[in-house]
Amino acid sequence: MLKPWTTINKKVLGNFRIFSLRSEEKISPRTNLAHEFFIIDCVHWVNVIPLTPDNHLVMIEQFRHGSNTVELEIPGGTMDAMDGSPVATAVRELKEETGYEGEDPQVIGQVFSNPAIMSNTTYTVLVRNCRLRHEVQMDSGEDLVTRLVPMAEIPGLVAGGNIRHSLVVVALFHFDLWLRRQAQ
Amino acid sequence: MLKPWTTINKKVLGNFRIFSLRSEEKISPRTNLAHEFFIIDCVHWVNVIPLTPDNHLVMIEQFRHGSNTVELEIPGGTMDAMDGSPVATAVRELKEETGYEGEDPQVIGQVFSNPAIMSNTTYTVLVRNCRLRHEVQMDSGEDLVTRLVPMAEIPGLVAGGNIRHSLVVVALFHFDLWLRRQAQ
Repeated sequence: MLKPWTTINKKVLGNFRIFSLRSEEKISPRTNLAHEFFIIDCVHWVNVIPLTPDNHLVMIEQFRHGSNTVELEIPGGTMDAMDGSPVATAVRELKEETGYEGEDPQVIGQVFSNPAIMSNTTYTVLVRNCRLRHEVQMDSGEDLVTRLVPMAEIPGLVAGGNIRHSLVVVALFHFDLWLRRQAQ
Repeated sequence: MLKPWTTINKKVLGNFRIFSLRSEEKISPRTNLAHEFFIIDCVHWVNVIPLTPDNHLVMIEQFRHGSNTVELEIPGGTMDAMDGSPVATAVRELKEETGYEGEDPQVIGQVFSNPAIMSNTTYTVLVRNCRLRHEVQMDSGEDLVTRLVPMAEIPGLVAGGNIRHSLVVVALFHFDLWLRRQAQ
């Protein structure tokens, strides 16, 4: 059985708009030696699986500044204080980023965004019967294009390295496992 | 077609042992407005799918300081300067963290660790015919336990929320897709 670590010191190192950075000095339960850990705090994130009546996913292409590349992804974003739930975030981000609206949004999975160095959670929300109903509302830091992708092509796009955002791949595995449960 | 952003200013904000933090000021190709982005740089990461001759995965449990929880994961770690390749990192980390050694290591997938805010890549390396051959060599900041998990239980563990590290879930989807290709 793994024992917990004891925190002996912690401090905030800086705030960087979408995340803040914190250090914690902790004592190892195994060696009794002190170690310093750096942890990134941010609000929770939500990724949306928007399924259309004819079994396409509403995907987006956008430029990503960490990788400096254009990535094929699904809609998603950060949980605002006003959202109240991952489902509310999903519905809002889907509408803002693609103009689509659907039915029966539900959380079908969740992970730690990166439990080694981050404290927040990423939720996967499935929205079915999605239809284009609104204009896209990009904020000034966004630039994105909608792509309708047949659901059956998703496994090949992940295996072939065409979908490369880790948290999008997570959401697509949650969706794949949800589909298997429906087929049982 | 999405256009690239123009960087007009960049600076390093700090080094925090396992990553460094950088800011970049860029001009949006859509709005011509300037935006500041914060980017986390670190070396590449490698996750290992260690398969035994009787179809178990060699998994580990370890305490994670971002989430402050014990997580069920697979072996993995950062690419050292000495490693030279993701496969070499996988073989080294598998041996150090579990004492297992196998055959025919191969990269079966890769993603950006988080292309929104990070610049590095995470590789998935499959190692087959893994057998226990060495003592575990934990460094003083590690504390982990080996668990042998039947391969057939993996989808249920991901769907049930028992495996919650995003990058481990990514690696397990890469493995699931690899298994499907073998079955074709």
